[in-house]
Amino acid sequence: MADEEFVVTPYEVRGKVDHERLREQFGAERLTPALLERLRGLAGGELHPLLTRGVYYSHRDLARLLDRHAKGEPFFVYSGRGPSGPLHTSHLVPFELCRWLQEKLGIEMYIQITDDEKFWFRPHLTRAETYRWGIENLTDLLALGFDPKRTHVFFDTRSIGAMYSIAVDVAKRIPYSTVRAVFGFPPSQNIGLVFYTALQTVPAFYPSWVAGRPVNCLIPCGIDQDPHFRVTRDIAEGLGYPKPGLLHSVMLPGLAGDKVMSTTGDTRDNALFLNDPPKEVARKLRKAFTGGRTSVEEQRRLGAVPEVCSVWAQWRSRFAESEAEFETITADCRSGKLLCGDCKANLIERVNGFLAAHEARRPAARELAESVILETAPPRATPTS
Amino acid sequence: MADEEFVVTPYEVRGKVDHERLREQFGAERLTPALLERLRGLAGGELHPLLTRGVYYSHRDLARLLDRHAKGEPFFVYSGRGPSGPLHTSHLVPFELCRWLQEKLGIEMYIQITDDEKFWFRPHLTRAETYRWGIENLTDLLALGFDPKRTHVFFDTRSIGAMYSIAVDVAKRIPYSTVRAVFGFPPSQNIGLVFYTALQTVPAFYPSWVAGRPVNCLIPCGIDQDPHFRVTRDIAEGLGYPKPGLLHSVMLPGLAGDKVMSTTGDTRDNALFLNDPPKEVARKLRKAFTGGRTSVEEQRRLGAVPEVCSVWAQWRSRFAESEAEFETITADCRSGKLLCGDCKANLIERVNGFLAAHEARRPAARELAESVILETAPPRATPTS
Repeated sequence: MADEEFVVTPYEVRGKVDHERLREQFGAERLTPALLERLRGLAGGELHPLLTRGVYYSHRDLARLLDRHAKGEPFFVYSGRGPSGPLHTSHLVPFELCRWLQEKLGIEMYIQITDDEKFWFRPHLTRAETYRWGIENLTDLLALGFDPKRTHVFFDTRSIGAMYSIAVDVAKRIPYSTVRAVFGFPPSQNIGLVFYTALQTVPAFYPSWVAGRPVNCLIPCGIDQDPHFRVTRDIAEGLGYPKPGLLHSVMLPGLAGDKVMSTTGDTRDNALFLNDPPKEVARKLRKAFTGGRTSVEEQRRLGAVPEVCSVWAQWRSRFAESEAEFETITADCRSGKLLCGDCKANLIERVNGFLAAHEARRPAARELAESVILETAPPRATPTS
Repeated sequence: MADEEFVVTPYEVRGKVDHERLREQFGAERLTPALLERLRGLAGGELHPLLTRGVYYSHRDLARLLDRHAKGEPFFVYSGRGPSGPLHTSHLVPFELCRWLQEKLGIEMYIQITDDEKFWFRPHLTRAETYRWGIENLTDLLALGFDPKRTHVFFDTRSIGAMYSIAVDVAKRIPYSTVRAVFGFPPSQNIGLVFYTALQTVPAFYPSWVAGRPVNCLIPCGIDQDPHFRVTRDIAEGLGYPKPGLLHSVMLPGLAGDKVMSTTGDTRDNALFLNDPPKEVARKLRKAFTGGRTSVEEQRRLGAVPEVCSVWAQWRSRFAESEAEFETITADCRSGKLLCGDCKANLIERVNGFLAAHEARRPAARELAESVILETAPPRATPTS
């Protein structure tokens, strides 16, 4: 059957994903130019490259959230990370958009670090490992430049005291059969991961719970995370919370070109990790899959195909510094003017420059991490129901 | 099939329970006179009436725990309460034994109040209700006279910060299929209750986790709670904790005589609640099921049958103040000397005296409750694995 050619859940991506068909399967909306222009208006006339270059392509309820925001009811942004290893460049996609939205709209940001989930999901990871990666990953995320005064972190095993009350309410509304259907869990799945989706829902409701009135939430995420938040949206209104809106990005190809970047896949060479040393970056990019031709002569004549190229995906999602540069790279690739070796050499320099600057921002971010982790719940504005 | 005549899980008791067959089905040991004598030796020559009168009749691993205790490795006791309504006299059975063990052996007591579980289990209970019953029930339990310096309370929604680290470790070891089999949950069961057994395991491991070395645990409980702790015992050693020992009591009959006391059953008249006013106690006991005969003449001639009598069960489990009194009541019942009306009148007076004294101890217990609830985890003796 056509629908079975690929499978996408938060715990599995199998087959070659057709993002447009996936959006339709999931019942999400296309992120239209008109919507983007409304967001541009709210953001002081700018749009982030991840929006203009189509990395974000799908949404739920964005129009409603922009409406309310324009009427003086700001939404907040929420994104999360399951800490099972070092971050790679694709992991930054939702957080970079969140950082930009925070800066342009002056809104609150909630980050969830799900060290419990990754411990439950990965048989061989220990608690010490998921905890350590949680702190490491959080440091990397904060080094992107979030506003310390508007950034709040749920680090699951440290923040459970602040999270649990909402999680208890949520868990009562979710039957096991829903979790089984949405995530495809076998009967052997441990009860931690069965429960976990209740915790992933908490940050979407927390600001409303604290304020005692509805506060809208926008969740930028890879479209593979959509199933979690469909569950969240299904139960939100029954608990008196607004349904969170979603902004879906495509799943970017790894350096092997044929599958998404993975922290824990069979090869580390498929991803550019934030802790890769410069030589490692160079080595990985030199062997990365491209849309180039089999000979220089043929490439000069026919041009290359950026849409299938893992190097182009890096320029597109982060490393092209301006629209002009991105358009030049894309045009020169397509025309055959830019050869893959030169393009890769440029990208290696750009990536290593970024990683060095990122590394320099980490010590302050590490210090910041301790002050933004929510460890107890604030007093509620309204009594528990 | 014979084995299907009754069903006992922590969430359902169906049919007429044969306790001896249930013990065999569960694979537990008989609580022998020899074991009781060893306990008497450790307890300074005394045994609690709940032990001598056979209310506790089954165990797991008690011999090992007594051995280690005698060698200077004290065990602690743990029992819990799911707060869905007022306590009745049968609820006091495990706690009274714990209080006695604490006093005689000088050991630590851990109480768990599972307000999350009851919220998940009872469709119509609200969070405010399970929280309020949790505080009420805890007050009643502390009013039994636990030693404030040796008593520690997990009140789930308040103590989760102290409990979660162990719960996360435990949950990874329990597949959904185990929970389904042990508790008989349907696919529609909410994911809170599916996860919950991980939390019921926490107090059994907590003192070992804090100390960084094995500390033995003894859990007095109704035998219907055994399935929870079989799961606990199955995973204990894999996590480096000793298997908890268990002391099982029979399920005492309610005042209707044919089923266990219930807080939330079809009638409040089946149980003596700790908040029943004196007239209510009298009314309920006057209509309580007994082992008496159809006429005074017949009873004088044949005697009554204490074993099936709900009034005798009350004398047996709490209200006979001495072995001499209990033996007299039992003998006079059996011989026909003591008629049901007189026996009930005596019990009404005794119960109301107990409830009045209990009520007088509640204000101090209510105050104590706030100081014994564990709200944050102490520093660990050993690092997280």
